[in-house]
Amino acid sequence: MEILKQRIREDGIVLEGNILKVDSFLNHQIDIHLLDDIGEEFYRLFNGEHITKILTVESSGISVACAVARIFKVPVLFAKKGNVKTLNEYTFREQSYSFTKKESYYMNVSKKYLGPEDTVLIIDDFLANGMAIDALLGIIDQSGAGLAGVGIVIEKEFQKGGKKLRESGIRLESLARIVSMKNGDIQFS
Amino acid sequence: MEILKQRIREDGIVLEGNILKVDSFLNHQIDIHLLDDIGEEFYRLFNGEHITKILTVESSGISVACAVARIFKVPVLFAKKGNVKTLNEYTFREQSYSFTKKESYYMNVSKKYLGPEDTVLIIDDFLANGMAIDALLGIIDQSGAGLAGVGIVIEKEFQKGGKKLRESGIRLESLARIVSMKNGDIQFS
Repeated sequence: MEILKQRIREDGIVLEGNILKVDSFLNHQIDIHLLDDIGEEFYRLFNGEHITKILTVESSGISVACAVARIFKVPVLFAKKGNVKTLNEYTFREQSYSFTKKESYYMNVSKKYLGPEDTVLIIDDFLANGMAIDALLGIIDQSGAGLAGVGIVIEKEFQKGGKKLRESGIRLESLARIVSMKNGDIQFS
Repeated sequence: MEILKQRIREDGIVLEGNILKVDSFLNHQIDIHLLDDIGEEFYRLFNGEHITKILTVESSGISVACAVARIFKVPVLFAKKGNVKTLNEYTFREQSYSFTKKESYYMNVSKKYLGPEDTVLIIDDFLANGMAIDALLGIIDQSGAGLAGVGIVIEKEFQKGGKKLRESGIRLESLARIVSMKNGDIQFS
């Protein structure tokens, strides 16, 4: 998605530890026009898959998931992190790990909102090591729902998450695939 | 907003400790159609205020803020909770407290995205004791931005947040105002 890559080139900031800051337009401040374009692009890619639900994880996946769900006209479901009191019963739960925050956490989805009747599109802002997506896949697996695929805004292709997903036969569509960020110079595949 | 009240009556679940669960349509699973209606209602209420930015806080405010921002055609800015590494410099920071989680936390907004040139509409899903809104107001105050008002989806009018805001002269618009949830029976004002 050229308009996205251009925006990453212009406004993305590379920090130590392979962190890409896109908080001027994606995960702190949010450019609503770009978000709509992203939603339309995912619709173009996954339309025809009879998707019934968009699954993401709080927080920065929510805005993208909503933009996609608007066009598919289906609900968003976002996994909640931590020990969520109001979700303590009847919950699909998987453990995940954040390399940015260096901590493990639980992801929770109520059993009421996901089941064998669903076909799910997973949406997230970033894919690096793929720990968050693994946990979401575990939740879908527990629920018996079908998986249409995984839609990612920015994939760090030099980390292992994308390769692992593609090798497992899962349909993965990433709108911008970064192969290198060496010396702050962002290269796309 | 009648369609919202009806939905709360039908699908809201009252839990111990004055907790209202609306996770079938607002803050776990999200009804995208209702979200659009909510966005339009806030536009109707605050249109003409020359709003330049929608400010909310992660996580469950993000979806509502995006729906509002789409119609205003302005960016969303969401405050990040905790000790956010990628925001450690140049950050407006305020302390807040969650009665649901019984813990204090920091709210962070990058100084890059908020300043005296902005007129801000604060959007959030719930208003109870008003601690989160207080912190957002503190951030706006630090930034020198103007405040158009506060838009809330569900206000628990029997808690003190709304009263305090109205008495301080801030324009507060709540789409559903709950005066009582005794014995699980939800009453609107």
